[in-house]
Amino acid sequence: MSQYQAPITDIYFNLFNVWQLDQYWSQQAALSDTVDIDTTKAIIEEAAKICEQQIAPFSAIADQQGAKLVDGKVKLPEHYHKIYQSLSEGGWTALSGDPQYGGMGMPKALSMMVDEMLCSADIAFSLYQGLTAGACVALLQHADEQTKALYLPKMYSGEWSGTMCLTESHAGSDLGIMRTTAKRDSDGSYLINGSKIFITAGDHELTSNIVHLVLAKLPDAPAGSRGISLFLVPKFLPDAAGEPAERNNITVGSLEHKMGINGSATCVLNFDDAKGYLIGEPHRGLACMFTMMNYERLSMGSQGLGAAERAYQNALGYAKERLQGRITEKDGNKAEAIIGHADVRRMLLNIKAMNEAGRTFATWVASLLDKAKYDNCPVAADRANLLTPIAKAFMTDQGFEACVTAQQIFGGHGYIKEWGMEQLVRDARIAQIYEGTNGIQAADFMLRKVAHDQGVVLLALLAEIKAEVLAKPIAQCLVLADYITKLEATAATLLVRNTRAQSANACDFLALVSNVLYGYMWYKSLSALNSELHTEAFISAKQQTAAYFFTRILPKAEGLFALLSHDSAPLDTLTIDQF
Amino acid sequence: MSQYQAPITDIYFNLFNVWQLDQYWSQQAALSDTVDIDTTKAIIEEAAKICEQQIAPFSAIADQQGAKLVDGKVKLPEHYHKIYQSLSEGGWTALSGDPQYGGMGMPKALSMMVDEMLCSADIAFSLYQGLTAGACVALLQHADEQTKALYLPKMYSGEWSGTMCLTESHAGSDLGIMRTTAKRDSDGSYLINGSKIFITAGDHELTSNIVHLVLAKLPDAPAGSRGISLFLVPKFLPDAAGEPAERNNITVGSLEHKMGINGSATCVLNFDDAKGYLIGEPHRGLACMFTMMNYERLSMGSQGLGAAERAYQNALGYAKERLQGRITEKDGNKAEAIIGHADVRRMLLNIKAMNEAGRTFATWVASLLDKAKYDNCPVAADRANLLTPIAKAFMTDQGFEACVTAQQIFGGHGYIKEWGMEQLVRDARIAQIYEGTNGIQAADFMLRKVAHDQGVVLLALLAEIKAEVLAKPIAQCLVLADYITKLEATAATLLVRNTRAQSANACDFLALVSNVLYGYMWYKSLSALNSELHTEAFISAKQQTAAYFFTRILPKAEGLFALLSHDSAPLDTLTIDQF
Repeated sequence: MSQYQAPITDIYFNLFNVWQLDQYWSQQAALSDTVDIDTTKAIIEEAAKICEQQIAPFSAIADQQGAKLVDGKVKLPEHYHKIYQSLSEGGWTALSGDPQYGGMGMPKALSMMVDEMLCSADIAFSLYQGLTAGACVALLQHADEQTKALYLPKMYSGEWSGTMCLTESHAGSDLGIMRTTAKRDSDGSYLINGSKIFITAGDHELTSNIVHLVLAKLPDAPAGSRGISLFLVPKFLPDAAGEPAERNNITVGSLEHKMGINGSATCVLNFDDAKGYLIGEPHRGLACMFTMMNYERLSMGSQGLGAAERAYQNALGYAKERLQGRITEKDGNKAEAIIGHADVRRMLLNIKAMNEAGRTFATWVASLLDKAKYDNCPVAADRANLLTPIAKAFMTDQGFEACVTAQQIFGGHGYIKEWGMEQLVRDARIAQIYEGTNGIQAADFMLRKVAHDQGVVLLALLAEIKAEVLAKPIAQCLVLADYITKLEATAATLLVRNTRAQSANACDFLALVSNVLYGYMWYKSLSALNSELHTEAFISAKQQTAAYFFTRILPKAEGLFALLSHDSAPLDTLTIDQF
Repeated sequence: MSQYQAPITDIYFNLFNVWQLDQYWSQQAALSDTVDIDTTKAIIEEAAKICEQQIAPFSAIADQQGAKLVDGKVKLPEHYHKIYQSLSEGGWTALSGDPQYGGMGMPKALSMMVDEMLCSADIAFSLYQGLTAGACVALLQHADEQTKALYLPKMYSGEWSGTMCLTESHAGSDLGIMRTTAKRDSDGSYLINGSKIFITAGDHELTSNIVHLVLAKLPDAPAGSRGISLFLVPKFLPDAAGEPAERNNITVGSLEHKMGINGSATCVLNFDDAKGYLIGEPHRGLACMFTMMNYERLSMGSQGLGAAERAYQNALGYAKERLQGRITEKDGNKAEAIIGHADVRRMLLNIKAMNEAGRTFATWVASLLDKAKYDNCPVAADRANLLTPIAKAFMTDQGFEACVTAQQIFGGHGYIKEWGMEQLVRDARIAQIYEGTNGIQAADFMLRKVAHDQGVVLLALLAEIKAEVLAKPIAQCLVLADYITKLEATAATLLVRNTRAQSANACDFLALVSNVLYGYMWYKSLSALNSELHTEAFISAKQQTAAYFFTRILPKAEGLFALLSHDSAPLDTLTIDQF
């Protein structure tokens, strides 16, 4: 496998040139003292070094060793302990944390770039820190002051880690039917009983304590998803000094044997009168947990992009070195590097064009979240909400496809473990499934984010993009305005259909919107090119990759337009027995 | 996992109603005494029973145990020995063999249906018998009488098995640069030296001997692929009585650790002065091996379809039982089976519509091969040649996609080993890669099968289909003629481009032709429905699945038309450093 090299140039291009976030940061009171171009570069380059040198080279070993349950305790790949400690000591677990509780207060746009690198290096490893960051976001927003003061500093410092405990064996996407219960105890805490499955980082010894955020039902809970409450259930109950003391009644029932992310301990956790503390209002737990889930959903996008970037680099390295077949007529019998073959270039460009658009998209969504947070800007918040399911579903679908395509470039060697490509395929696959399957994301997008407000947020965004594209036209992207016009028409027809038809079209509509928005990402990238800032080679690479995107990738969207123009009724005509 | 049930009704529908092969068989001297409807049913139903009861239930165990190298010997999953013996004893290894040497002489259309079932049951296991059948085809066509008489009966009976040894570590798609040598020995045999990799079924103890078909270069060989000869190199040299005697100098260097098909022993084989026998003319080995490879390429299609069928059945079973979410308003809090969800139905129908078209397509291609063989019909031979890369590439691409989609229906449970879905994804992946990657197939299709004769075979086929569709129009398929007209125009523009541009468009063009031909498969299926032969439920299921195909799947081809209408030049503008 090639040595992973963090795509630093492209990260800077997106942060500083495409979205000019350094200018935005300098205008925000909460950020101007925290982050600027120099801090960003220091952070990105140090993170790159860690990912490249300490994590990425060992991801195959982590896959091989995997997480194991030994005498009721979870054992992780050995080197995970060393690198987790190194991340904690370097302050990386505090990167996006609130400064009031010891966090570094970095904007999401920056931490998301670090996320991508961590995911390129080892998705399974990235989850321990990622889940903790998500749990902190939920606590910061919904816990009381005392809880925050006790837990957040330890979690930001990396001493303690976090999980989210939602799924039960019979309750996945449908959390309303969960059975885990919470009963108020005499001291004001709660006794939690039940069994949760698929708990990522559910147990391990990387940290001295694990803070589980658990959904459960109170005795007086209304039925369904409006009767779920959120509890903080620590592995060790903190003593008066806030140090881990008494072991809580949480046991690991088993570890799942999975297709991939083997270094991630995916646990069945049993809670037997485990002591927990209510977070937020009773019965409002799902809303609280959604704070964390929305955060996680964006991180899924980073998993897709991270895996795709690593896969691309490996395939590119292989394509430059593997000699096979003759392309030119130079020497009839001397094999040439396969990167000369048209079909190999096609595969590489399909990945490259989508990865670069994906990075621009990730930066965009993260910057919208920052604007929502620091400016309290409702337009930015609405747009971040709109785009979150795209970041989750489309970026992970693209991530998986990129890994499969990159694996294909290796031929038979791609199927063999030693080249690392099959691990990337196995690891990337999960991001399409967990944190709400991509089907759930599409339904969320179509029904809640588009149909619910009659498309107001989406259509306003599209109108704004079209105006921008028409006002400052760029040769390679001339078709974009037409695509947006067609997309507006498709949206209009979907908006007048009933919920069933909207659900039937949700996945394809999400893919269509995503493709067109990736076109806008390429427009933004070309707009940001500047011969004073960028080398000629960089500029022409972007221009030519954009030309490839607009002529050889975006046209596939015509298939989605055609499909969505047809009635979805044939989906419902078969009886169950006829399947 | 659901219990696998062979799709017998659909198999009969394709054999007897869509393609009416029983009528064809009855008119062929070589077949009329061998096969009819009753024999077919006896064979299919017995094969179904073996696959359902003896093979499929244990495929997960085979995946877990895998093939292992112990003290230089390959150990297979234990139950493989029992089922291989049972297949041999039942005459299954002789199914398609030439009667002159002890084969059953069944037509390809029938054996291909059995192949699909074997692949649904366990792809890894199916390879031992599949490779042997392929080796027999090559020997039958190219070996001398003495060799055929010695080897074929033992191979048909299942006592001995076969392999194909092509790839070397530096020579995969590009066989011309191989280094394995053959030197004529004093007794007229040859001494083979070299190392071959990725040899499926390269060693094992299922059979008392293994017949390796090895490509190697003679000392006077011209450079490149025109200097390769084919040798038969047995693991044990037969004695005068034709029984395995002296051990040949072939050793297993190692077993590959793969993404999937773990029960298949993928070997590095070292030949050190191994004794071999020339098959066919010197330097004409690649042509001889292509006899086997073309056979194998069709079998790859069965792997794609077989995996997809199993994946569909599992997902359907799960979708009927898994209760999650509320679809109707009947009872606000009671979860319903997820097959009611529009998006789950969409995923199931995408698989179902492609699987059924795929089965019709497989039967078609096999019947063309039969016509080429028994009628010596050049049109059928040309069409089988044209369609072989589609059967290999498109059917395996669809197979993998079906497995991934079916896995998605399971949500998180699809990622866990115990449900078997992730194994199907891992197992199905290889068929897109081996026996010539799907990129190689597309190049073969575009350059050799279409451009080479200026599209004559393809265009004649399309014209014939269009005439048929227009002469007997069917309501659900009315768009098909338009698609064919557009496809003809696309083909015409590609035919006048240069080889580089054709190569760049090959994959997408293959996909486009395949989609349109799958439309024709649905047309043929609808044409074959008959209320005297089929139940109302069967007829309406076919009609509605076809309606789904024509309105919700085929329209995606518009994306391929659009893509192919653009110049592929942007593919070649980046320098290697700009990737």
